[in-house]
Amino acid sequence: MAKQDKEFVKEITPQSEDYSQWYLDVILKAQMMDYAPVKGCMVIRPYGYALWENMQKGLDERIKATGHRNAYFPIFIPESLLQREAEHVEGFAPEVAWVTHGGNEKLTERLLVRPTSEAIICEMYSRWIQSYRDLPVLINQWCNVVRWEKVTRPFLRTTEFLWQEGHTVHRTEAEAQEETLKMLEVYRDFVENDLAVPVVKGQKSEREKFAGALRTYSIEALMSDGKALQAGTSHNLGTHFAKVFDITFLDSDGELKYAWQTSWGVSTRLIGAIIMVHGDDRGLVLPPKVAPTQVILVPIMPKKARAEVLEKASAIFAELKQSGLRIEMDDREEYSPGWKFNEWEMKGVPLRLEVGPRDLAAGQAVLARRDTGDKEVVALTDLTVRVPALLAEIQNNMLEKAKKFRADNTHRTDDYEEFKQIIEEKRGFVISGWCGHADCEAAVKEETKATIRNIPFSLEKETPGRCLYCGSEGKHLVIFARSY
Amino acid sequence: MAKQDKEFVKEITPQSEDYSQWYLDVILKAQMMDYAPVKGCMVIRPYGYALWENMQKGLDERIKATGHRNAYFPIFIPESLLQREAEHVEGFAPEVAWVTHGGNEKLTERLLVRPTSEAIICEMYSRWIQSYRDLPVLINQWCNVVRWEKVTRPFLRTTEFLWQEGHTVHRTEAEAQEETLKMLEVYRDFVENDLAVPVVKGQKSEREKFAGALRTYSIEALMSDGKALQAGTSHNLGTHFAKVFDITFLDSDGELKYAWQTSWGVSTRLIGAIIMVHGDDRGLVLPPKVAPTQVILVPIMPKKARAEVLEKASAIFAELKQSGLRIEMDDREEYSPGWKFNEWEMKGVPLRLEVGPRDLAAGQAVLARRDTGDKEVVALTDLTVRVPALLAEIQNNMLEKAKKFRADNTHRTDDYEEFKQIIEEKRGFVISGWCGHADCEAAVKEETKATIRNIPFSLEKETPGRCLYCGSEGKHLVIFARSY
Repeated sequence: MAKQDKEFVKEITPQSEDYSQWYLDVILKAQMMDYAPVKGCMVIRPYGYALWENMQKGLDERIKATGHRNAYFPIFIPESLLQREAEHVEGFAPEVAWVTHGGNEKLTERLLVRPTSEAIICEMYSRWIQSYRDLPVLINQWCNVVRWEKVTRPFLRTTEFLWQEGHTVHRTEAEAQEETLKMLEVYRDFVENDLAVPVVKGQKSEREKFAGALRTYSIEALMSDGKALQAGTSHNLGTHFAKVFDITFLDSDGELKYAWQTSWGVSTRLIGAIIMVHGDDRGLVLPPKVAPTQVILVPIMPKKARAEVLEKASAIFAELKQSGLRIEMDDREEYSPGWKFNEWEMKGVPLRLEVGPRDLAAGQAVLARRDTGDKEVVALTDLTVRVPALLAEIQNNMLEKAKKFRADNTHRTDDYEEFKQIIEEKRGFVISGWCGHADCEAAVKEETKATIRNIPFSLEKETPGRCLYCGSEGKHLVIFARSY
Repeated sequence: MAKQDKEFVKEITPQSEDYSQWYLDVILKAQMMDYAPVKGCMVIRPYGYALWENMQKGLDERIKATGHRNAYFPIFIPESLLQREAEHVEGFAPEVAWVTHGGNEKLTERLLVRPTSEAIICEMYSRWIQSYRDLPVLINQWCNVVRWEKVTRPFLRTTEFLWQEGHTVHRTEAEAQEETLKMLEVYRDFVENDLAVPVVKGQKSEREKFAGALRTYSIEALMSDGKALQAGTSHNLGTHFAKVFDITFLDSDGELKYAWQTSWGVSTRLIGAIIMVHGDDRGLVLPPKVAPTQVILVPIMPKKARAEVLEKASAIFAELKQSGLRIEMDDREEYSPGWKFNEWEMKGVPLRLEVGPRDLAAGQAVLARRDTGDKEVVALTDLTVRVPALLAEIQNNMLEKAKKFRADNTHRTDDYEEFKQIIEEKRGFVISGWCGHADCEAAVKEETKATIRNIPFSLEKETPGRCLYCGSEGKHLVIFARSY
């Protein structure tokens, strides 16, 4: 550990003072990332990457369990392929990185570094698909993508980021729609149960949908500063891409038909969601299911008892590790226990296990929770049972706490003056009626910086009331919020 | 399955007729990959990618078990960073892809798409490392890299490929050297034990070493056409990069010192090695440890017994899957058993399990090995024991067979005329004396297209004899071969 790291634990700006600075302080000091010498790019350091690996594992299992297989498509897309779908090129062309030279030669056609892979994947699908027997095609890809962003923020919006993108092809509209909603539900399940981040499932407005999609759905989360974060999207692409990339199949009725497609993705931006939903003024708070280290064992070692404590602590460490827990032991001599407590709290480790000479003499240890700060004394013989149980409790409590925060910060009004006041003073989600017109949506955004996050499925059956902006009859109940 | 796939099983060019065409036939027909609409790039299709995922898992476990952690560094490297290390820039600048525009704007400095990440990683290491307490740094990265190759061949040499690259920093030369050789041994262990590909560990000549390295080591494998393939490399970078990127640390003696570094990598090219070492005229032969499908269950279903066979086969399938095997069942009605046998043999599945009405009546099934073609009858009650045992036998047999092929195709001569004849007519590895001069090495390459693959550790203690080319006293025994 470097010298300059030694005083950092208390150097986190309080959330109440400057939330953005708190966020940057936390991710830098916890060594989640560092700025790279390329504008808008970041380095994901081992601690941040280990979190991402655990997230990948949980999501990849779900993606495979729903019948998808992983593949890999090239990072470069010829400009002519991007040009084919009009909305798609309009949406992405302004924010792509262009490769113009290979070695010492100028390319005859520019290549873009993928901002998303619909174009190149559709080109391959048009070769691979001929018959209804080739369908469905259920492929996912884990990769890096690049979007030339003007304003960036680590994890939330970076020039390069890591993600998965699913791309599927179906025989009918109904199948494509079913897939679109199935993967949205996979995302909800993953984000709520593994990341302990509650989300709202719903449809995006026309204005906010993916460039080239028929319909876009999203899961939206609420950060602890009251701003929303789009945590994942799932698109029914209709036959838009099939028509321009010529993805047709001979159906069993002998007719040549355009195929229906979907695409869906989540990214390293979810790391930002974890940080902002659960973090506090002491630093990160990581959900046990994805935390790189679930338990940090800190032996309390007065000089004369050092060997004895260390021996016993090592045995406890080995036993818990053997049981499948992600546990680390911090037996560094150059730091005090208090300093270590601070550091591991800052790193968001869900559970701290303290063992000192007196504890050991009494055949017990102390467990301290990161989420509540609660401590409890546990018999050493109970550790392999109590630790996993406590981790499950922490996971559950983190989700419930985030749900309560969201409930406390979800408002309901069709009154525009009240709406403006809420958005300005309290933030959070605001549920309002909307007439369905893009003009009203745009005016609200212009005047308040709040956008329609989505049209929640959960509110579909409620009476929409009146449009927040124009006062005419509401068509949908929607969630407005300022967002990342 | 598309119509055009139905007749493909017998459409593989024999190895003896045209080895290159055999290779392309096999990988296309087994749907390992497809050509992308970008020069020199390929799509890794689900069957090929599943193989890569299994390979990644086996290697990643070994990389982590030796104390390394994964991270992610940006794909873009500013031109000025590449320029710093003279040999490095000379080696890589001619083959990089250049990003010159972001969105609609021309960049003030060109960015290269990483061909390898020493430059950007060293830049970060110079920020992160101050004290000997920060060392060692043991980081690995799984990512895509791009090299603008003139001549490409799927998996073996493509413009974009996937790999892992380890980058470590150490306090002393001895530690860096130990790490370099440790990772070379990790590669040997992985490639021989998981991929069943025997390799020769050794040091690269000065001429063939990595651009910027102090010493490069490689593992070299022999393909079934007698050409060599460099299967992995591990570099002791010395303090070359530390000096130009200013990676210094305050040592415990109070002195500021340059750090010692290593880097090491293997790539999707290893997939090419698997194909070329084990494949035959019927198609792929995949090692059980990494095969996407280890066992293909083919129920033999005459019309009247269909329901009964399928029910029993499903139970067998469930039981074997439950036991942890990667097993698939092919119960498609539109294909005959013989056609299915051919297809799965072509796809290289190590073991086929046939169950028909007569087998089932007798309480037994037939197991057919892909590597030898041998069949055996097994009692259904023994399957969960016999199948894993047979897979282990196949894995072992594949390695032994490849070792025997290599032994049969390794020649020993210091006579240049004989050497030329061997290289021209038999190929294989040729062990010869070498005086250590680059001139002789270059002349042999010029005249025979054979290069020094490496200076094998295993021959270090033998007397080198005379230099193959100049006849002066030999300094090393080396392996010459034509290579991919």
